[in-house]
Amino acid sequence: MFELITKCNETNARVGLLTTEHGKIETPIFMPVGTQGTVKTMTPDELLENKAQIILGNTYHLYLRPTQEILLKAGGLHKFMNWQKPILTDSGGYQVFSLNANVKLEDDGVTFKSHIDGSSHKFTPAKSIQIQKDIGSDIIMVFDECIPYPAEFDYIKHSTERSLEWAKQCKIAFENEPERYGFKQFLFGISQGGTIPELRKFSSKKLVEVGFDGYAIGGLAVGEPKDKMHEMLEISNEILPQNKPRYLMGVGTPTDLLEGISLGVDMFDCVMPTRNARNASIFTGIGKLNIRNAKFKDDFTPLDEDCECYTCKNFTRAYIRHLFIAKEILGLRLTTLHNIHFYLKLMRTAREKIIEGNFPLWKKEMLNKFRKIET
Amino acid sequence: MFELITKCNETNARVGLLTTEHGKIETPIFMPVGTQGTVKTMTPDELLENKAQIILGNTYHLYLRPTQEILLKAGGLHKFMNWQKPILTDSGGYQVFSLNANVKLEDDGVTFKSHIDGSSHKFTPAKSIQIQKDIGSDIIMVFDECIPYPAEFDYIKHSTERSLEWAKQCKIAFENEPERYGFKQFLFGISQGGTIPELRKFSSKKLVEVGFDGYAIGGLAVGEPKDKMHEMLEISNEILPQNKPRYLMGVGTPTDLLEGISLGVDMFDCVMPTRNARNASIFTGIGKLNIRNAKFKDDFTPLDEDCECYTCKNFTRAYIRHLFIAKEILGLRLTTLHNIHFYLKLMRTAREKIIEGNFPLWKKEMLNKFRKIET
Repeated sequence: MFELITKCNETNARVGLLTTEHGKIETPIFMPVGTQGTVKTMTPDELLENKAQIILGNTYHLYLRPTQEILLKAGGLHKFMNWQKPILTDSGGYQVFSLNANVKLEDDGVTFKSHIDGSSHKFTPAKSIQIQKDIGSDIIMVFDECIPYPAEFDYIKHSTERSLEWAKQCKIAFENEPERYGFKQFLFGISQGGTIPELRKFSSKKLVEVGFDGYAIGGLAVGEPKDKMHEMLEISNEILPQNKPRYLMGVGTPTDLLEGISLGVDMFDCVMPTRNARNASIFTGIGKLNIRNAKFKDDFTPLDEDCECYTCKNFTRAYIRHLFIAKEILGLRLTTLHNIHFYLKLMRTAREKIIEGNFPLWKKEMLNKFRKIET
Repeated sequence: MFELITKCNETNARVGLLTTEHGKIETPIFMPVGTQGTVKTMTPDELLENKAQIILGNTYHLYLRPTQEILLKAGGLHKFMNWQKPILTDSGGYQVFSLNANVKLEDDGVTFKSHIDGSSHKFTPAKSIQIQKDIGSDIIMVFDECIPYPAEFDYIKHSTERSLEWAKQCKIAFENEPERYGFKQFLFGISQGGTIPELRKFSSKKLVEVGFDGYAIGGLAVGEPKDKMHEMLEISNEILPQNKPRYLMGVGTPTDLLEGISLGVDMFDCVMPTRNARNASIFTGIGKLNIRNAKFKDDFTPLDEDCECYTCKNFTRAYIRHLFIAKEILGLRLTTLHNIHFYLKLMRTAREKIIEGNFPLWKKEMLNKFRKIET
């Protein structure tokens, strides 16, 4: 499934190629988040025009709406949303905890109430796999608990052990559940362990012993300091096999992405480019800007002078500001499209720089630019 | 500006060609409404792909946001929103009354408070023309009062006389105010008179005596019975010159459009296709449907089997229903695009049928289809 093509001489940055039946994915890659069967505001064609290679779907949301029943009838999520490139789904674990106040966590699974209608549901490792098989994602994630930060050592230890147990159950369920739509699906494990080095090592080693098609580093970007995140990434990536893809879940800012690549990560997802866009927050080569700012009211330049996206080729800051002030949906579309283009272009450039052998210098220059604004 | 190409033998339906510096417009035509410098949810490219030839902008809204100052700096609305085809603007009169509770109507103009921030403003005929010159629309409408229905005879008479006086003032202002952006703009008069035949005749005759580039029939579709609307259209169109375009403002349903064409109307605008779309109401060749309806949850056919729009070629009723239920913006985009395509296609077909000499029969068939659902 994964071919490691080249590595950076100075850092752990890698260039690879992931192969699925819905297409090849050039890593490092950013996966736009399509929570409910759509990357918010965008058509599949716009994703393709901006060179998206894989998107992420949220199992929790898709389970509640449109439901497994509808997805099965549709022939899977690819057909339902008319996206023919690869899809990765999370396990539903993260949203079960983040979107629900009263969650009952037991050793065999999690009982929760729907954030939509309050109805009661239970996710188990086997159930999560079953749903993801019904969704028909190319890459399935094991069911886990995303440990909050900070947490007590004993809690982290118990949760990490339980997630490992769940990962084993997921693998069994994955092997037992037939594929629904005739194409091969892959299963990724998720390393936990909070920010405790020995538990990170334990989790990563044990996962590798179980054996998965790829490995995610989970439970990070939940409030811990950046140096802790980087330390955990180093620890995990020393243990995770070189010939398997590595996925840092829910990360992050452009700076986080470049740091992650530098530490050996191949795959990322985050709602940041799309959610920020809907809040008028724009990523550019010279930092972030808030397009609602009054100083843009008569600024007839593009969002980003150096950007080649549809938005920047056709519209001005003044116009997009007007759309936001007037609460026009087109504003949300144009900024989303730009931010997604920015993230995907950043990853393509990182890949080129690794291949050319210029990644460390380029990364330093980019971080300096980003640092001005992002802090 | 207007060339009358052919007429129907049985009805008053006409085929014409309107020429502006931003392009030719094949009539009969429907003008999508772009209230605040955007046809809600759509890019200019999507309008072009769906063969929109002219759009409408609302002077009241554009005056408040982005303001004349910004539009002047931008080089006019075409450049501001990146739409290079013709634009028609209304005069602002309609919104002044419909969006404001406390309006002070005097013989020289209307004082109103902004629906956005409560600030006080006054529109006069000259002011409306000045704003529309700053907007840079290809077709400017005279400032008028849209008389509510029902109204007392004396009120209608006085208002009609005042609107006529305003029309004269508008023509003077139009001729005195220089064009801002180097291209020619046109001025349309608006016939009033409520549903009183003698006042309609009076208004239409007097307007023609003043002389305009085209004539709108205003103050209809405000609650009067359909047969009254048709009667007023007949009366107006008998008086309005054959060699000038006729525009029925704020109309309407697909049925209204075909009836209007039949009675000699060349141009229409209405928020119906876009507003209905955002409320999940879909126009199809076999009537309207509400895509939120549960019966569509596993309906994997397009919105309209016979439609060739992007939405119908790529997505199913089940998917679009899901988008609406999940409150996803893409749903609003896909239905808007379909409804706009439907309206524009209907007008193109009407034009073809008039040219072919088959308009009356085709119209009858279409009205039968529409009647099932729209009533």
